[in-house]
Amino acid sequence: MADVKTSDVFELLRDGSPKTRAELARSTGLARSTIAARIDTLIRLGLVAPYGDAVSTGGRPPSLLALNPTARVVVGVDLGATHARAVLTDLSGRILAEEREDLDIAEGPEKVLGWVTRTVRSLLRREKRRIADLAAIGIGLPGPVEHATGRAINPPIMPGWDRYDVPARVRRDLDVPVLIDNDVNIMALGEKHAHFPDVDDLVFIKVSTGIGAGIISGGSLQRGAMGTAGDVGHVRLRRADGVACRCGNEGCLEAVAASPALTAELRSVGEDVHSGSDVVDLVRSGNVAAIQVVRQAGRDMGEVVAMVVNFINPSVVVVGGALSAAGEHLIAGIRETVYQRSLPLATEHLRIVPSAAGERAGVIGAAAMAISHVLSPEEIERASLALQG
Amino acid sequence: MADVKTSDVFELLRDGSPKTRAELARSTGLARSTIAARIDTLIRLGLVAPYGDAVSTGGRPPSLLALNPTARVVVGVDLGATHARAVLTDLSGRILAEEREDLDIAEGPEKVLGWVTRTVRSLLRREKRRIADLAAIGIGLPGPVEHATGRAINPPIMPGWDRYDVPARVRRDLDVPVLIDNDVNIMALGEKHAHFPDVDDLVFIKVSTGIGAGIISGGSLQRGAMGTAGDVGHVRLRRADGVACRCGNEGCLEAVAASPALTAELRSVGEDVHSGSDVVDLVRSGNVAAIQVVRQAGRDMGEVVAMVVNFINPSVVVVGGALSAAGEHLIAGIRETVYQRSLPLATEHLRIVPSAAGERAGVIGAAAMAISHVLSPEEIERASLALQG
Repeated sequence: MADVKTSDVFELLRDGSPKTRAELARSTGLARSTIAARIDTLIRLGLVAPYGDAVSTGGRPPSLLALNPTARVVVGVDLGATHARAVLTDLSGRILAEEREDLDIAEGPEKVLGWVTRTVRSLLRREKRRIADLAAIGIGLPGPVEHATGRAINPPIMPGWDRYDVPARVRRDLDVPVLIDNDVNIMALGEKHAHFPDVDDLVFIKVSTGIGAGIISGGSLQRGAMGTAGDVGHVRLRRADGVACRCGNEGCLEAVAASPALTAELRSVGEDVHSGSDVVDLVRSGNVAAIQVVRQAGRDMGEVVAMVVNFINPSVVVVGGALSAAGEHLIAGIRETVYQRSLPLATEHLRIVPSAAGERAGVIGAAAMAISHVLSPEEIERASLALQG
Repeated sequence: MADVKTSDVFELLRDGSPKTRAELARSTGLARSTIAARIDTLIRLGLVAPYGDAVSTGGRPPSLLALNPTARVVVGVDLGATHARAVLTDLSGRILAEEREDLDIAEGPEKVLGWVTRTVRSLLRREKRRIADLAAIGIGLPGPVEHATGRAINPPIMPGWDRYDVPARVRRDLDVPVLIDNDVNIMALGEKHAHFPDVDDLVFIKVSTGIGAGIISGGSLQRGAMGTAGDVGHVRLRRADGVACRCGNEGCLEAVAASPALTAELRSVGEDVHSGSDVVDLVRSGNVAAIQVVRQAGRDMGEVVAMVVNFINPSVVVVGGALSAAGEHLIAGIRETVYQRSLPLATEHLRIVPSAAGERAGVIGAAAMAISHVLSPEEIERASLALQG
């Protein structure tokens, strides 16, 4: 038996355009009998299905085969500090069903992941899909994650989660591959999947209680050696001089431009605000103090985004997270500084835009992470070997 | 004829371990006659050769085949502001011959690239290799480069080179693939190739007349959307407040920590220094003012390296370029700031080291860039199709 080849046959079908068995045999150089066995495996894996009938060249019409995105499904889960969201999608990433719940991540992994597995089952039931149709689950967590092992590492707002084996807990209930990453990485994947499929260099900046970035460079998510890439919240800024940051240092971007700093500043001038969404509401109501505070946060972020642009040279910077709902005031502040501080060649074709995926960026990205695992050559070989016993 | 498959056969041999034709047929599932045709192509391309004799299983001993790194050669060229260096290597990157010359890049592309093609011929002659043995040429330029087209873009120290078609000029004399990149990107490739083959996340910082970085992340060089990734010299630093930079802005890292700033500072206290290597000589002689100036430059660079560590999370930061010859004083200044300013998880296993490839980092990397082009699946398919007519 030849090795690492079912995936080669699949790669030929992955573009979605239907092909005959004869075309597949010709393209791979494999014997008809080998091709037949591999197609059988892909059909049994639910990845490929017969597709209408090809135009006859005389005699029996050759049967066409094509990628079958609806045969299997994945679930993408986005766990935030105080909410959770999950979607069921097919293998093209199309959303079939969705659930959202107020859920405090600090309630710990047993409770939160219990909600996750119950929700996966309920999403499947709603769409009348069997558990056997579920190919993988992708989960985003609001803290540092070791992607390879699926563990959170010293997450500041997640008591009880440190080094907890998330995939093992989920697989106790549902025996499918479970992929874990941090929230801003899956948001970057989601924004690319949904709105920038052809962009290879995209940075997603999340502004909320903290500030972080997901970096897609050369077409791939860059996690770095320890999975901590994209930490833009703790760059030292002059305007933050002497301001204590929750990281233990002082003078960090987060200490002046994330939502706790903005609410504190607005409270000091008499506004009744307690969260990023209160700030957003004030901005939308036209409150001048709130607009000024958000604009300045944009300028502060712009200092750091300018460095990211110089270092990574993305073609798109997407700004998301709760504070980004404040709209153009934040983006305008960022643009103002970036175009002043970055080199002309790096900003010539640069777009700085608000997140279009919005609140769904995370779940779409978590599903996309699960799908790219399921359709990877390694995983297809593993699944086809398992099938052959 | 099957498509995209000669490269598949090659991939099986690329690890260097010899294999029989029967093993290759089994691993690919291809017919013996197809395997024979593809191996014939690889042998004619000079990439694969018969290798000793396999242990007989009775009857005629099956002939072994293996990657043949010495059958073809590449040339790597590193063009600096005032010097040029070239090496001839085999396909494993082993250096066979080397030339170095004082050559001013400002003399323009016709003259400088004339030296390049003459030197390629002379290197081949010295090693008694034919021009047909030459598989590719890799060239590093001391300025911004559009890698895809091989043109320099607004290079500040390269009059006459702006948008000049470097590959076309070289191919007028030598009709082989010509790959172009900027000097610090090829230095990063060279350091990885020669000293960190298993490291996927490495940042090379070059400190000389300017300051730049080459970023390898997820195992690949990251050039960014416009090829300007790695620009670390123009980050705004407090200590550089009000100091004009050659980029037109003020307050940039380069304005205080590159060699022109250091020589100016030492001249102001009466030292007779005119270049980075004068500064290095003073440091080596134990001059306290020079040591202090270099140490402070290290601290200033450390501010920016700390940001790079937070954003990209490399496991190795290599410091090279003329000023790096000042030794531990520069590295100590960098480490001092990085360990203070970067997050613990990002620095836990971080190494900050001087370049081990030293003056040869560039040529080794330029040769490695040429080799990875020659051995890429796309290039092997292109070459084998050309061979078949």
